[in-house]
Amino acid sequence: MRFDIITVIPGLLESPFAHSILQRAQKKGIAEIVVHNLRDYSTHKQKSVDDYQYGGGSGMVMMIEPFANCIEKLQSEREYDEIIFMSPDGVTLNQSIANELSIKKNIIVLCGHYKGIDQRIRDIYVTREISVGDYVLSGGELPAAIVVDAVVRLIPGVLNDETSALSDSFQGELLDAPVYTRPADWRGHKVPDVLLSGHEAKVNEWRHEQALERTKARRPDLLE
Amino acid sequence: MRFDIITVIPGLLESPFAHSILQRAQKKGIAEIVVHNLRDYSTHKQKSVDDYQYGGGSGMVMMIEPFANCIEKLQSEREYDEIIFMSPDGVTLNQSIANELSIKKNIIVLCGHYKGIDQRIRDIYVTREISVGDYVLSGGELPAAIVVDAVVRLIPGVLNDETSALSDSFQGELLDAPVYTRPADWRGHKVPDVLLSGHEAKVNEWRHEQALERTKARRPDLLE
Repeated sequence: MRFDIITVIPGLLESPFAHSILQRAQKKGIAEIVVHNLRDYSTHKQKSVDDYQYGGGSGMVMMIEPFANCIEKLQSEREYDEIIFMSPDGVTLNQSIANELSIKKNIIVLCGHYKGIDQRIRDIYVTREISVGDYVLSGGELPAAIVVDAVVRLIPGVLNDETSALSDSFQGELLDAPVYTRPADWRGHKVPDVLLSGHEAKVNEWRHEQALERTKARRPDLLE
Repeated sequence: MRFDIITVIPGLLESPFAHSILQRAQKKGIAEIVVHNLRDYSTHKQKSVDDYQYGGGSGMVMMIEPFANCIEKLQSEREYDEIIFMSPDGVTLNQSIANELSIKKNIIVLCGHYKGIDQRIRDIYVTREISVGDYVLSGGELPAAIVVDAVVRLIPGVLNDETSALSDSFQGELLDAPVYTRPADWRGHKVPDVLLSGHEAKVNEWRHEQALERTKARRPDLLE
């Protein structure tokens, strides 16, 4: 699977893609993540990629041309399944969208900045608009990293323990039960006895109860 | 304002905090963002920070001791308003939580990994559990960066244009209207006439209609 990310701040994405699971996925050849500097596709002398918005108002708008140039160059090299624009007014990312994207082959992700991107980019090129949540960020780079991370870890072979991704929160319908590790007693704060009992059926029952209780308390919407 | 982020992969957070608005906020002395390597607080020879979970099952659990050591060292140096644990079962981040956090002084953020962190860390130290959305990620680092970005940009003096943050999506009750910049005609795709009219009242009316229409179509919940 290949991600091409188009951004005006390519440096911001360096370290998230160079560590942990995303690094491992790239080393194993399972995922390829390429970051493109939007300014390289500007036809202006100053490499500018934004301009004042029509109709007035504060905030610069990212121009259509550099995005178009970069997207069309990529499209001339391979076929893309999706061109995603990270936007607070897109469809909110969830685990089912992540699952869906994890079986695609080539995806372009556009990172917006400033006041937004020229609407024509969205109308002409973008196949899907995704938000990571109801909050405003400086740009689409961290959201793009979130999408790549959420998706790549689902590709078989990326996680060491195949069962791990399946037992994650949101893959089932309940939140996770509390987890504990050594020491069993830390300054008087003890691990629940049942987890030390060695009685597998009781452990499973306790975990299910705890997961249910936590879900009821925190996310009753998941039970509906 | 100061953020102390405790993570097992400090390198992952290098570039997000060294660019754009977060870099500017630090240079201006408005925000201080310190990343701590959890392994430095391990008392084990191998600097390990995780162990098998009690009760069995796949996935390692992060131990209480390294987190406790790091948190207590920080608490001995200054008072903290919040100790936030990034967790998919936390309260979902939104703009009102970001606003609320932006007036705090010192915040610790704990990044989880693997199967999770020992529940006792959450019970004893954590004051607030925050999720960035209903999807599973490799760890709490990108969510921590999301929180820092969403919060720091709200602090007065961080954004160049004071009006920009206030006119963002989610600060009001409507999504943004489409935005356009030059050229007015791109391969036959034209900017709406009203935006070129120079008639401010008509522009505002059009923007309000568009914002309302987009919100109705995409996020009717925001209108309820």
